[in-house]
Amino acid sequence: MQKEKEIQQLVDSLEGYLHQKVKVDLHYSDLSKIFKRMRRLDEERFSEYIKRMPTHILGDILETFNERMLKESLQILSLKKMIGTIKKMDSDDATDLMQDIEELDEELAASILAGLDNKEQEEIQRLKGYEEDEAGAYMQIEFFAANHNETVRQTIENLRKLKYSEELENVSSVFILGDYNNLVATVQLEDMLLFDFDKSFKEIISKRPEKYKPRYVNDKEDIEKVVMDFKEYDLQVVPVIDSDNYLVGRITADDIYDLLQEMATEQIYNMAGVDEEAEGEKRAIDISRKRGKWQFLNMCTAFFSASVIARYQTTIEMLPALAVLMPIVASMGGNTGNQALTVMVRQMAMGDVDDTNWDQSFFREIIVAILNGLIFATLVGLGSYVWFKNTKISLVMSFAIFMNFTIAGLCGTLIPLLLKKMKTDPAVGSSILLTMITDALGFLIFLGLANLFIF
Amino acid sequence: MQKEKEIQQLVDSLEGYLHQKVKVDLHYSDLSKIFKRMRRLDEERFSEYIKRMPTHILGDILETFNERMLKESLQILSLKKMIGTIKKMDSDDATDLMQDIEELDEELAASILAGLDNKEQEEIQRLKGYEEDEAGAYMQIEFFAANHNETVRQTIENLRKLKYSEELENVSSVFILGDYNNLVATVQLEDMLLFDFDKSFKEIISKRPEKYKPRYVNDKEDIEKVVMDFKEYDLQVVPVIDSDNYLVGRITADDIYDLLQEMATEQIYNMAGVDEEAEGEKRAIDISRKRGKWQFLNMCTAFFSASVIARYQTTIEMLPALAVLMPIVASMGGNTGNQALTVMVRQMAMGDVDDTNWDQSFFREIIVAILNGLIFATLVGLGSYVWFKNTKISLVMSFAIFMNFTIAGLCGTLIPLLLKKMKTDPAVGSSILLTMITDALGFLIFLGLANLFIF
Repeated sequence: MQKEKEIQQLVDSLEGYLHQKVKVDLHYSDLSKIFKRMRRLDEERFSEYIKRMPTHILGDILETFNERMLKESLQILSLKKMIGTIKKMDSDDATDLMQDIEELDEELAASILAGLDNKEQEEIQRLKGYEEDEAGAYMQIEFFAANHNETVRQTIENLRKLKYSEELENVSSVFILGDYNNLVATVQLEDMLLFDFDKSFKEIISKRPEKYKPRYVNDKEDIEKVVMDFKEYDLQVVPVIDSDNYLVGRITADDIYDLLQEMATEQIYNMAGVDEEAEGEKRAIDISRKRGKWQFLNMCTAFFSASVIARYQTTIEMLPALAVLMPIVASMGGNTGNQALTVMVRQMAMGDVDDTNWDQSFFREIIVAILNGLIFATLVGLGSYVWFKNTKISLVMSFAIFMNFTIAGLCGTLIPLLLKKMKTDPAVGSSILLTMITDALGFLIFLGLANLFIF
Repeated sequence: MQKEKEIQQLVDSLEGYLHQKVKVDLHYSDLSKIFKRMRRLDEERFSEYIKRMPTHILGDILETFNERMLKESLQILSLKKMIGTIKKMDSDDATDLMQDIEELDEELAASILAGLDNKEQEEIQRLKGYEEDEAGAYMQIEFFAANHNETVRQTIENLRKLKYSEELENVSSVFILGDYNNLVATVQLEDMLLFDFDKSFKEIISKRPEKYKPRYVNDKEDIEKVVMDFKEYDLQVVPVIDSDNYLVGRITADDIYDLLQEMATEQIYNMAGVDEEAEGEKRAIDISRKRGKWQFLNMCTAFFSASVIARYQTTIEMLPALAVLMPIVASMGGNTGNQALTVMVRQMAMGDVDDTNWDQSFFREIIVAILNGLIFATLVGLGSYVWFKNTKISLVMSFAIFMNFTIAGLCGTLIPLLLKKMKTDPAVGSSILLTMITDALGFLIFLGLANLFIF
């Protein structure tokens, strides 16, 4: 009964949206949530309402679906409806959705593309041409520009017409073009309201050119750099120009929210040996394969660390207490190293640590490692003594802990710096490399010292 | 010489900014970078230029400094200059800076506060009253509102006046207030340009109330929820109301960029057992202490895992190969569990996994764990056989790996879900709990099985 009641609520919301009798203006995010829930509760109704969604919002909803739900929806929807939907979408979103469709069903994607007019086809092809890490791949080609010879009044009139046709949203700024269609200024709407409406932009801008100097990005620029610029310069929108200085699109705040979160997720996943794209797809077999790669690497390093222990088999045979204590050295070293590594990788990603100031972080980490190394060497030494009542064992334990803390702090700091120097992502593989070092050296120092001093 | 040259470049930029001869309109972010670099190269010049920075930008620069640089700057700057600086800042930034100053020098903070006029004092006190996780703590009280009985023309005139006084930036929307000063609508500037300037907002809005229905947040609302709303609904700005429905401030996109990054950093740090705030302060002793807490917990769990091994000392004495292989079981289990845990924690933070759909993730993780458990049980079994030429050891090893993979997948998924159910942050402490389980159970299963079947 509970289920029936929930379905009825979802149906009511959807009917309310479709008929607008009760004036519910649902956002595509709300509709997406309703459809995701409906898909789990009542597949038939899911199909029914997906078919009834109007084209102007259907694309945004489909974009939020995972692979499986998108596939199902494509089987339900007619080609005509899909063509209408793509036509209604912003260029960047349309391109994303087309790429998702292409991955699922190349033939269908080709049919949809064929149903678009030449201009739309050309736009999607152009956006698809950008690499995943280029700013161009995230821009939308819908924007509002004015020639610098236009008067403010003319421009407002043009904006009105455009807005009435409902083809453009989020026009917080007007991009001003020069004689050769080159970008010469960005004017915020709030500033434009202050202008004398009868003057041309050229006249107005020439008085304070530095104020309206556009902060633009190049379409081939690294998108991560663009995201950092938004954050650093508190931007709301940025124009994108191509190599000929020609205005080709814009990137808006909502893209940056998604990118900031995605970048952080990628970093978190990379450090844990997880692939962000595979996880997004949510097919267990793909996830297994991707994660398996890192597990394989971890297996190799674990065997390597084991080979270090193997050298001391006879020592352990004589004193099995060593086998009991050695994982403590490895575990605590790994933990300490991971703290330093995490802080370094994150601060490098945020631009807080770079070539000019890495030495500060380096020395700070060394001090932290030595301080805590001393404290925990004492604690662990005492703990071992209470347990095994053997001064030599507890001294060796203390020294091994101190050494491994220092090494862990050193490596946790240096590994990401070195990876960066080698032009690879400091988040990828660094924690496995670190664990290998703290494990293998932890065992080596502890067992090696025990071998030397206890017998 | 290289150093002298760099200093000269920094000096040139600063002089260029101060005199505006060369029309350099540097952003506070640029100036902050210049000062941070200068501080390392030439402390005297750093002091000289900090003193010469105009008040309207000095506050934004000071806010980007770390504790030590802020402390130095406060010693250089006069009280009068500091009062002037705080006066020029947006309310939210002024409050943040005042709180930073208070932590360093309570007396100075009190003197600055005393130098502000009553309204400014009251504003800062009010903003300081919010908890760190409340939306109110991140809002600015500078915004632009209009009464719904005003005509559009009047409102534009008011906006002009306000903009000329340079007291307000980033006015992308006008908040419309009703008869009791309650928030009734939000109108974007781009929409306002379409209106008949001689009509009142009331008339215009009444025709399409659902279009201008404001998406507001309450000042006591959880800020993380607000950030998620910005992301989900592609917002640029959101009005903040208090419990009496009275408009008290607004939150803008640039706050969201910072918050999104901070939330991700906090999660990354929490998972690694690192305190975000302590790391920000950058004093080695504070960092040591905060990290030490987690290292202490890790020490306890490591001793616990060691106690599991201790039960099998005689078994190890008879067959030291077990001591060689046992860390492989623990390490690979830990690695696998950490992958599952990381994905769960992150997807829960992003709102992708919640009460309604956690079972999907749960089953997916179990399948992944079993699949890879089977694969790596085989690989590790083969590897152990090649190494020790002992069928029993390699069978026990295989089985232990498979078991530990499954347990790791299960715990990696369940721990964050249970922590969430217990209303605590799934990122905090979960990885130490997980490691304890995969270590202790890994040793127990491997050594226990060996004890049962090998001898």
